[in-house]
Amino acid sequence: MKRYLALICLVISGYSTAQDDDVLKTYVSHSINELREFVAIPNDATEHADINRNLTWLTNKFNARGFNSSILPTQGESLFFAALPMEDNKPTILFYMHLDGQPVDPTKWDQPNPYSVVLKSKDGNQWKKQPFDSLANNLNYDWRLFGRSTSDDKGPIVMLLNAIDLLKRNNVTFPFNVKVILDSEEEKGSRPLPKAVKEYRDLLKADFLVINDGPVHVSGKPTVVYGCRGITTLTLTTYGPMKPQHSGHYGNYAPNPGFQLAQLLASMKDAEGKVLVNGYYDGISLDAPTTEILKNVPEDAATINGYLAIKTPEKVGGFYQESLQYPSLNIRGLGSGWIGEKVRTIIPESATAEIDMRLVPESNGNRLKDLVKTHIQNQGFFIMDSIPTKEERMAHEKIITITEGSVTNAFRTDLNNAYGNFLVNVLKDSFGDDVVQIRIMGGTVPIAPFINELQIPAFIVPMVNPDNDQHSPNENLRIGQLAYGIKAFYGILSTKMN
Amino acid sequence: MKRYLALICLVISGYSTAQDDDVLKTYVSHSINELREFVAIPNDATEHADINRNLTWLTNKFNARGFNSSILPTQGESLFFAALPMEDNKPTILFYMHLDGQPVDPTKWDQPNPYSVVLKSKDGNQWKKQPFDSLANNLNYDWRLFGRSTSDDKGPIVMLLNAIDLLKRNNVTFPFNVKVILDSEEEKGSRPLPKAVKEYRDLLKADFLVINDGPVHVSGKPTVVYGCRGITTLTLTTYGPMKPQHSGHYGNYAPNPGFQLAQLLASMKDAEGKVLVNGYYDGISLDAPTTEILKNVPEDAATINGYLAIKTPEKVGGFYQESLQYPSLNIRGLGSGWIGEKVRTIIPESATAEIDMRLVPESNGNRLKDLVKTHIQNQGFFIMDSIPTKEERMAHEKIITITEGSVTNAFRTDLNNAYGNFLVNVLKDSFGDDVVQIRIMGGTVPIAPFINELQIPAFIVPMVNPDNDQHSPNENLRIGQLAYGIKAFYGILSTKMN
Repeated sequence: MKRYLALICLVISGYSTAQDDDVLKTYVSHSINELREFVAIPNDATEHADINRNLTWLTNKFNARGFNSSILPTQGESLFFAALPMEDNKPTILFYMHLDGQPVDPTKWDQPNPYSVVLKSKDGNQWKKQPFDSLANNLNYDWRLFGRSTSDDKGPIVMLLNAIDLLKRNNVTFPFNVKVILDSEEEKGSRPLPKAVKEYRDLLKADFLVINDGPVHVSGKPTVVYGCRGITTLTLTTYGPMKPQHSGHYGNYAPNPGFQLAQLLASMKDAEGKVLVNGYYDGISLDAPTTEILKNVPEDAATINGYLAIKTPEKVGGFYQESLQYPSLNIRGLGSGWIGEKVRTIIPESATAEIDMRLVPESNGNRLKDLVKTHIQNQGFFIMDSIPTKEERMAHEKIITITEGSVTNAFRTDLNNAYGNFLVNVLKDSFGDDVVQIRIMGGTVPIAPFINELQIPAFIVPMVNPDNDQHSPNENLRIGQLAYGIKAFYGILSTKMN
Repeated sequence: MKRYLALICLVISGYSTAQDDDVLKTYVSHSINELREFVAIPNDATEHADINRNLTWLTNKFNARGFNSSILPTQGESLFFAALPMEDNKPTILFYMHLDGQPVDPTKWDQPNPYSVVLKSKDGNQWKKQPFDSLANNLNYDWRLFGRSTSDDKGPIVMLLNAIDLLKRNNVTFPFNVKVILDSEEEKGSRPLPKAVKEYRDLLKADFLVINDGPVHVSGKPTVVYGCRGITTLTLTTYGPMKPQHSGHYGNYAPNPGFQLAQLLASMKDAEGKVLVNGYYDGISLDAPTTEILKNVPEDAATINGYLAIKTPEKVGGFYQESLQYPSLNIRGLGSGWIGEKVRTIIPESATAEIDMRLVPESNGNRLKDLVKTHIQNQGFFIMDSIPTKEERMAHEKIITITEGSVTNAFRTDLNNAYGNFLVNVLKDSFGDDVVQIRIMGGTVPIAPFINELQIPAFIVPMVNPDNDQHSPNENLRIGQLAYGIKAFYGILSTKMN
């Protein structure tokens, strides 16, 4: 999962008694050992043999906890599936995590092998290597484990395994049937997933889905995320003379494709960033309780604006979380002729804008693309899906070529869902702290089609620190997050729903 | 000089008697030999020794015709100057041509050595090499001489030398004092010229300037050009978040620099291509006789639009020649983020437009730049001349960095100038054909500062065929144009002004 915010991490507060704390620390210690072992198996999904070694490790570990596990073949790498013995009278929880990791470039890391976990303490602004045996006397929750996938996403898998151990030690009766599905190609876009979920629909059947991926909110507080935006793209190209022409000979005569494109783009958004395409925001309405939940996310404009270095944000929403409730229309790229050192005094042949549209559940991607196309047509453009010929150029005043990208739709679970309320309450009770509820995150996760296919309520319950540098060199996991994760899974699997 | 139009060449018609024709052919034959000799000396101005060899050749050739010649040192390559003995009671004509040529890449030419002239006849669509001795019996005016600078601009120099010979043979008394200045760095932008003309102002003193460079009008008719547009440039950069941001996380929140730029550019021009910047066209008015002269240029919209492959041109002028009477505002380049295969789903950090403005005499470049800057300020932008710091980004709503290019102003001689009328009448009488009068050509020539410094009326009287492929491989000169040039120079130097 992509980070949705990553600024600073605050310390997680606990409420346990001193005795509970000691027991927990035993399991945290064990999870450190298990995570070192797991991370040691490289997990770039382009290496089939490595993925298989991870699957074998997982089979052993889950089976040892009483799970029945299966390797599910797909069109790509196989998925890992495990379930505890089912009981008919219990609701079923399905956990989704992923075993693959981002590729590594060891030369960019501050350690020789990104797959060999290094323990570090912070000394001022410097991370300092520590021997693992120093943890025996001092299990410092602020120290960190550096290595690929410590946070994204092997850490949470190990947290679940150790929470199961602690639950078993305490003879807790699970209020749910427990299923686990682990993706092998999440970092490559989970391409086999939509088809696999159709094939294994019966096996995956559950009452709700809990995704343990990505970091908790930047405030460091317990977090539940109810959805994420989708995405689709458009490439727009306008045309000038058929070949680039000398700007002296034809300036004021040959139409300039950059001005045509600028005029079109300017017609799509007002000065405050609101999309002017008819119907673009149709179907979206935020009632007072929803707005209240958005406002309750502990973040402030000054911090976000300072991070972006902007004076004033766009005005689609009144504040950051509100802005994510709407589909966006973003120019991710512009190109025409040459800029900078290569600049030439020409009237360019064409001008191109690369557009991406982040989707919300109210705005189906194909519907939005149609609205934009209608808008473009209303601006007087003749729309084509190929490069115009000379004859076509001479037959139409203004021509645009539109290339459409595929659609990944959004998903969003209702804020009032009973399982969502259950998760929020469990986290609140486990940590004695407010739970940050994110109605929808801005980015897009590749499991959205999977969720939409299963048609069950889905929630992201992240377990790792927001400054974990996932996807980057020196990815790390705060040891305290292992305690956090074990407690969170423990709470979920030990609390009976009302 | 840059080509201002280059489509097709029509045959030049002559009116001479059969006897005159035979005499002329003798001089055309001689000029072919002299041009082969001259072209054989490479003339890329980056090769100082080659330029010197050209200067020596010219000194010999002009001195042989009774000129007094001088090599004028400059900050770059030396200029060549020659004058016939002066008589106080005659007006002085100054001819400007250039001895340097475009660099050559022999691998792109259809002959081994671009400096060794090859004679060719056209066989269908194919050029076919011919032996030079075949010219003795058949001096075919449609055959061509292929080689660097045959047209641009050694051909016209040789035409002048041979016209002088013919004038002397016929014992013509020159009605003018004759001065010749030959540039050595025209193809490199004539950088030393503005300073040199200040230094040699007294030597260059004349009543009018005739520039023999570039091709005649595409119609092939005798042509007089009264001016050319100037140029200046602006680079405009708008800003989004300080670093590129994930378009999911911040789409709808972080301002997009591409939309800011599009809105600004869209405000600068209307849908028909007319500049909306206040005062941009101030001072330009075309009276009926001027419009008549513009309309008399024998060209039609269908041909030009077909060449450009456009349905409708911009509407700054009602037709091509009229459009050149106004300053242009052209987007020569656009860039932001990435397009095509490299596209990334980001909100880019900045967006840049490269603008060029072709100038006319009414629109001083610095004044136009100030008008554009005022327009940008009125759109709510804070204007800077450097990249904004974080603090500056956070202090201003919309920031733009403007980088200004230098100004080369336009020049244009009055259509009613007595020397202009004289040249038109001479060409009309010499060829018995209408003379195409171009009030201003669209492109910019580097000698404009030189002309503006001398403050004398200046006229471009081109001598070569419009399809000469100057600046390209296989540059060529139609043999008939040697006859054309000798006759044109003969007419100018044998006709007394009324």
